[in-house]
Amino acid sequence: MASVDTSLHAKTTGAAAAFAADHASEHPLKLYGGWFCPFVQRAWIVMHEKNISHQYIEINPYKKAPEFLALNPRGLVPTLAVPVAENGRVQKPLYESLVICEFLDEAFRDDVAAVDGVQGENHGKSLLPEGPYERARCRLWIDHISNKIIPAFYKFIQHTPDKDYSIEDVRSSFHAQIRPFVKEMGPANEGPWFLGQRFSLVDVMLAPWAKRLFLIDYYKPGGVGIPSSGQGGEDEEIWKRWRVWFKAITDRQSVKDTWSDDDMYIAAYKRYAEDTTQSEVGQATRRGEKLP
Amino acid sequence: MASVDTSLHAKTTGAAAAFAADHASEHPLKLYGGWFCPFVQRAWIVMHEKNISHQYIEINPYKKAPEFLALNPRGLVPTLAVPVAENGRVQKPLYESLVICEFLDEAFRDDVAAVDGVQGENHGKSLLPEGPYERARCRLWIDHISNKIIPAFYKFIQHTPDKDYSIEDVRSSFHAQIRPFVKEMGPANEGPWFLGQRFSLVDVMLAPWAKRLFLIDYYKPGGVGIPSSGQGGEDEEIWKRWRVWFKAITDRQSVKDTWSDDDMYIAAYKRYAEDTTQSEVGQATRRGEKLP
Repeated sequence: MASVDTSLHAKTTGAAAAFAADHASEHPLKLYGGWFCPFVQRAWIVMHEKNISHQYIEINPYKKAPEFLALNPRGLVPTLAVPVAENGRVQKPLYESLVICEFLDEAFRDDVAAVDGVQGENHGKSLLPEGPYERARCRLWIDHISNKIIPAFYKFIQHTPDKDYSIEDVRSSFHAQIRPFVKEMGPANEGPWFLGQRFSLVDVMLAPWAKRLFLIDYYKPGGVGIPSSGQGGEDEEIWKRWRVWFKAITDRQSVKDTWSDDDMYIAAYKRYAEDTTQSEVGQATRRGEKLP
Repeated sequence: MASVDTSLHAKTTGAAAAFAADHASEHPLKLYGGWFCPFVQRAWIVMHEKNISHQYIEINPYKKAPEFLALNPRGLVPTLAVPVAENGRVQKPLYESLVICEFLDEAFRDDVAAVDGVQGENHGKSLLPEGPYERARCRLWIDHISNKIIPAFYKFIQHTPDKDYSIEDVRSSFHAQIRPFVKEMGPANEGPWFLGQRFSLVDVMLAPWAKRLFLIDYYKPGGVGIPSSGQGGEDEEIWKRWRVWFKAITDRQSVKDTWSDDDMYIAAYKRYAEDTTQSEVGQATRRGEKLP
């Protein structure tokens, strides 16, 4: 997000503040983020899942740190500073949350040497499956999350009564993007995740918006409106599977540990709910464009 | 592209017809495509580069083959039928050109077994580099191609005199997206490609639109307008590097072999040039939206 609302609180709180404090020391691998940004949370969750040593630096949007702007003049978060040479003293930037997450997943594996200067261990296995077809299928549904579900989320939360379409329309469009995604999930008796037993990047990619769904309940008449248990009619099996995934993802330690206090999000998303946010994502949604 | 113009010629011609004829026999790995579609050409180039045995099936947009619609009800091209079990008799679909290209690159490597039923050889090395940071940098610039350069291409070719912005504006916006991409290229004395010596997916991703630039020269007053040798002013070094890449990519065998006769593209792109195309990409461009 290049531009953010000037009333935004400038620091992590709650669990995220503790996690940030644990990663405040100088380290050649640096994640520049904003507590409020769901795209940052994607990268942060991967850091947590893979036990990646790093330094987290909260970017104050009103006063961006000079070393951050030197690294990425566009000033976007998340930005990752990657040590590439001279024992970590030369750092290069990565941005785009999916690019960062795939990089972290590839660079930090127990079976290969990590990137220059940040050798680590205990990273576990990859967050993508091994088989090429299954990897591609994950990428296809990550694309669905980014290009279908997330835009529908913003169209929903930014709905106001003066729009020329109703809240029922945006709610139903949001559900229409969730359903095909859920149908692709592995059977719940194998495990709660998209792939069933195995937690993957697909789960990570949607997690920050799953955590933010309560904001729609808070701000919008009728709320998210996903049917509760037994109320899903002919789609009950789909919503039942969704509820299993939703509980698992919102209970996941990496998701909880990268989350600030609920009240802070309620305050931060007020301008989204009123459709007056100046964020890039918010403005693109208001103009009816795809997200930047 | 879900919808296409009904006047479109329905078959490959020229070199692409010969390449299609060489891949007409029954094979469990099938690429469903349209000769005209640049997203299809991306997948086709990878098939060629990696010597991947496959069956190419040209989809007549007015009469989509039933087995194609059974595989991918959305009817999008490119679609890849991937044999996943029972010695190739069970096939699953992939779509989205980048997902298909990454899949082909991962599945067909000389050092690992290929996908079920289509074991092959002589696939060469990966079209992405080995180091995680370099791989991520490639993904970042593939993203730039897909989300910045290609939309600027369509905005350029679909410009008409009645727009509220000038042809100079769209030409200059197109150049503005090319320049940062070229600045990221390796030095030309190492090789012509984005990575210098090594041909990669980054080159593939832009190749189909590089081949289509002559259509802008043909249809638009002032043409593409990239400075010719010695005419680039303060950006001469950038444009010199572009010219090296452009010549190399348009001379590449895989690009030439997946190309129909020039005249066919001129006919096919007339509706783009007049901004009356009904293709999804064309309509999104007309509405000022990001591409689907």
